[in-house]
Amino acid sequence: MTQRIPIVENILNANDRLAEENRARLEAAGVFSINIIASPGAGKTSLIEQTLPRLKDKLRVATVDGDIATSLDSDRAAAAGAGAAIQINTGGDCHLDAVMLRGALDQLDLTQFDLLIVENVGNLICPANFKLGTHKTVLVASIPEGDDKPYKYPGTYRGVDALIVNKIDLLPYIPFKMDYFQRGVRALNPNVAAFPLSCVTGEGLDAWINWLTQHATHNMI
Amino acid sequence: MTQRIPIVENILNANDRLAEENRARLEAAGVFSINIIASPGAGKTSLIEQTLPRLKDKLRVATVDGDIATSLDSDRAAAAGAGAAIQINTGGDCHLDAVMLRGALDQLDLTQFDLLIVENVGNLICPANFKLGTHKTVLVASIPEGDDKPYKYPGTYRGVDALIVNKIDLLPYIPFKMDYFQRGVRALNPNVAAFPLSCVTGEGLDAWINWLTQHATHNMI
Repeated sequence: MTQRIPIVENILNANDRLAEENRARLEAAGVFSINIIASPGAGKTSLIEQTLPRLKDKLRVATVDGDIATSLDSDRAAAAGAGAAIQINTGGDCHLDAVMLRGALDQLDLTQFDLLIVENVGNLICPANFKLGTHKTVLVASIPEGDDKPYKYPGTYRGVDALIVNKIDLLPYIPFKMDYFQRGVRALNPNVAAFPLSCVTGEGLDAWINWLTQHATHNMI
Repeated sequence: MTQRIPIVENILNANDRLAEENRARLEAAGVFSINIIASPGAGKTSLIEQTLPRLKDKLRVATVDGDIATSLDSDRAAAAGAGAAIQINTGGDCHLDAVMLRGALDQLDLTQFDLLIVENVGNLICPANFKLGTHKTVLVASIPEGDDKPYKYPGTYRGVDALIVNKIDLLPYIPFKMDYFQRGVRALNPNVAAFPLSCVTGEGLDAWINWLTQHATHNMI
């Protein structure tokens, strides 16, 4: 496998340069941006569906949704009130990269938005390695995935700025040791902003909305 | 991105050749083998924990567990009665490949086993692209992931021989349209062997155990 390493590094270097360009474009337009990553089915799109109506009349929001196939996610974002909802189909690639985000930014008049929400491809590994140029990375974990995930995916948990712990409404039905989960998170990422919540019941959403609104309105980058 | 394609193809070709060698070794020793793939937390390890005791006195089983980090999974497989439980830490790679499996086979006396269960890295995309040399690929889906996953990950659903639909005990608590899910599965993979079950309650496990035992004992390859 050794011979692959230089190639991957070259790709990552090129990606990082493009990510910096994306960041500069977003900042020039005054747009705060987040990159949401998660396992398939952890609830990225549900979180966006619950978030958009709560930002109405406060922030103008655009979404970019990455998927292997279909426009199911951007359809849901548009229905939830996104000012623009762009779908990227990677066609097989297991993550978004800075080139793909640049293509999406080309389709937006950034001056018309305050917040850009990027929903990455459902994958707990690869998206963590590719910067997009967004300001904050948000990981959506979920109770049914199990309490051992920080231990098994340390690189992903280490690199994020905010951690949503979704589906807390299922805690009564699933063996999930919150102490064990939290110990793993704190060991890897002691300063992460953590938001246990449920996109079904709405419990815990206020704290997340406050965090997001604070960052987007005061450019707390 | 175009310039990456030839490199990836070369890697896949080399991988396929090694996968064929792995297959030949397994068949020479009379070992039936499955490759289990799934999202993080869908229940691969729980399935293995529930499967091994039910195969006791019938089949001699070895497991190979792939993870980014930790030996949590192989510890659980060993505790559940695997005759041998080998952990592969990929160190960041988002899937197992044929080279990694070859390294694991080198550590096993294959003549001592009837069944090899390979648990791939938790990822719904990348493992589908790398053959290992195993006889059957088993996808573990789970109710909390949502009913849209066949539509969003068509390549993965198309390529598998058996589909476990795990965590059916959570159906009363989660909006999951089984009809919609099944329509997606059947459109992509009409002949897949499907097993709705719960590793918590044990419901549905018998049909899965029968399928696995039939294939392993009669070399239904």
